[in-house]
Amino acid sequence: MLDQTIKVDLSSTKKPKPDADKLQFGKLFTDHMFIMNYKEGQGWHDPRIVPYQPLKLDPSCVVFHYGQTVFEGMKAYVTKDGEVQLFRPNKNFERLNRSNDRLVIPQIDEEFALEALKKLVSIDKDWVPTAEGTSLYIRPFIIATQPYLGVAPSSEYMFIIIMSPVGAYYKEGLNPVKIQVEDEYVRTVKGGTGEAKTGGNYAASLKAQEISGEKGYSQVLWLDGKEHKYVEEVGSMNMFFKVDGKVITPALNGSILQGITRDSIIQLLKHWNVPVEERRISIEEIYEAAANGKLEEAFGTGTAAVISPVGELLWKNEKVVLNEGKTGEISKRLYDTLTGIQYGTEPDPFGWTVKVE
Amino acid sequence: MLDQTIKVDLSSTKKPKPDADKLQFGKLFTDHMFIMNYKEGQGWHDPRIVPYQPLKLDPSCVVFHYGQTVFEGMKAYVTKDGEVQLFRPNKNFERLNRSNDRLVIPQIDEEFALEALKKLVSIDKDWVPTAEGTSLYIRPFIIATQPYLGVAPSSEYMFIIIMSPVGAYYKEGLNPVKIQVEDEYVRTVKGGTGEAKTGGNYAASLKAQEISGEKGYSQVLWLDGKEHKYVEEVGSMNMFFKVDGKVITPALNGSILQGITRDSIIQLLKHWNVPVEERRISIEEIYEAAANGKLEEAFGTGTAAVISPVGELLWKNEKVVLNEGKTGEISKRLYDTLTGIQYGTEPDPFGWTVKVE
Ligand SMILES: Cc1ncc(COP(=O)(O)O)c(C=O)c1O
Ligand SMILES: Cc1ncc(COP(=O)(O)O)c(C=O)c1O
Repeated sequence: MLDQTIKVDLSSTKKPKPDADKLQFGKLFTDHMFIMNYKEGQGWHDPRIVPYQPLKLDPSCVVFHYGQTVFEGMKAYVTKDGEVQLFRPNKNFERLNRSNDRLVIPQIDEEFALEALKKLVSIDKDWVPTAEGTSLYIRPFIIATQPYLGVAPSSEYMFIIIMSPVGAYYKEGLNPVKIQVEDEYVRTVKGGTGEAKTGGNYAASLKAQEISGEKGYSQVLWLDGKEHKYVEEVGSMNMFFKVDGKVITPALNGSILQGITRDSIIQLLKHWNVPVEERRISIEEIYEAAANGKLEEAFGTGTAAVISPVGELLWKNEKVVLNEGKTGEISKRLYDTLTGIQYGTEPDPFGWTVKVE
Repeated sequence: MLDQTIKVDLSSTKKPKPDADKLQFGKLFTDHMFIMNYKEGQGWHDPRIVPYQPLKLDPSCVVFHYGQTVFEGMKAYVTKDGEVQLFRPNKNFERLNRSNDRLVIPQIDEEFALEALKKLVSIDKDWVPTAEGTSLYIRPFIIATQPYLGVAPSSEYMFIIIMSPVGAYYKEGLNPVKIQVEDEYVRTVKGGTGEAKTGGNYAASLKAQEISGEKGYSQVLWLDGKEHKYVEEVGSMNMFFKVDGKVITPALNGSILQGITRDSIIQLLKHWNVPVEERRISIEEIYEAAANGKLEEAFGTGTAAVISPVGELLWKNEKVVLNEGKTGEISKRLYDTLTGIQYGTEPDPFGWTVKVE
């Protein structure tokens, strides 16, 4: 582990905390942030917790021009005993390092990053909201900060963690969404950056999302970039379908994000002896299953919503309504179990949660 | 045209100008920069020329997380009469707006942007280097600045122009480069962002470039993302081949950048009655032509080098040496003519140059 002490500079003023019912994802941030710098020849250095504040960057910094950046997303939860815990945070830092590798960003020390995160959360502990379904969203990210316009990996970086209290995703119970299968635009392709959590993938998605949003669909379901035939994933969720009693999800093929919720769900299903398969899934197969009355459920999985049941699919003007637009049984059970583990109301047989302090 | 005055705040100190032989692309910037802000409901506003200075941005700004950013690259040249001129700058702002469209960034007023650029160049006129082959590199770019972690188009942006004096690209005459045909990684695919000048495309390219650099190749030649079969473009250049007396270049297929040098070269070749074709070109076709002794020349085209002759290609461990590794005749003629127009030593029959002041 990186043998460095984290310098702490506490904020002299504290921002007022918002009401639990007014929490808005990603708009308000806690009193502090973690920063660590990298410089070629020097490595990662100067880890510190400082008051949340603007970054001062030269306009020629690599991140502004060539998108050399990676990020993560996870949450801290308060248990009924008032303890704060994280959900599989080591998986996030592992994935951050895989993203780093693809983006030619230097590796971070995962253990040290987790220590830094725990310290930051414990300092801003009062910011973890306690109302049902609320949590503290955690955003670690790395940006390339060398002031140089050459197209080359940056020689300087900043690793930063910021945190934002978020309200309950579902205020009136699990709410199925309408999803449009995207036929023109593409998010990424094998050999590209799809497996990495990097800005460019999300920038590429905005256009399709805007168009489908105008049609009343809340998310876009991406097909593969090669043949526009196979299901990849949704905006910020992996996809699962329940067909004829079996749960299926696209295999990790190099172009979809290796979701941590996805992995947890596969483990849970196996634990329950529910048949689950990771494989290539064509959108035609899903539409055929629907036509034959065998498409029982569909849902997205991700840190934000945990489970997002799909009530309707649209592909090339053909609509499919799932489970009468209602949340399915397995979606509900997965949601209840996973959130139960996260909030400490259910046992944690897999050792997924990590206490802070 | 946007009816707004550009506020000018001149720098009280001037940085020393570097020696002509010490100029390094994109590391040193002129005394001033142009900035203009956008806010939803308000549009683009507050255009100003200010001393070159760091940007102060909230760590949650969209650009740091979701790569919503576009840029351009062009140059200002000093003519033998001491006049400063730009090369087809309107094409750059047109392309910037096409990039904006793909990235869901609001359109800029192209005419106004050109006025702003001219004003900035004229204020920093002393920074346009005069030694042979030198120029002032101009980098307009737009970054998404809303402090919000939601994956959605930003409601705030900054449009910025910075400028950097650059040395001669070729110090000892046109110098052929060695290029590796990339077989694993992919830059983009149809339906993606390849046609836009946006950070993510360049971030995606770093890994392959690093690997081929270690093998001694200076650039990567991208194949299409779908079949890994057709020639797309090089790092920051479009590709041309001369085969059996005919010049061929990949057609604009939605995944390659619409290079302004590319367009100028096609026009020049037509003007000279040299046969030129824009079409799909497989890498196999190029290798076959080489085997049959019909591959006469290959070159990349872009603002930085204008023409970059290719002396060697490597594809799947198979090497092809072109024109004995020397610069070909058409490459040389195109280079001399285009740079002649840019520096005002050759007539400009197409009206491509635009005087500053
Ligand atoms: C593109 C994409 N796919 C899937 C996911 C789900 O991943 P996780 O379950 O780790 O949150 C996310 C969200 O993080 C994402 O951005
Ligand atoms: C990916 C890419 N292709 C091609 C080019 C060449 O374009 P232009 O001739 O307009 O400089 C560039 C450079 O700007 C580029 O970045």
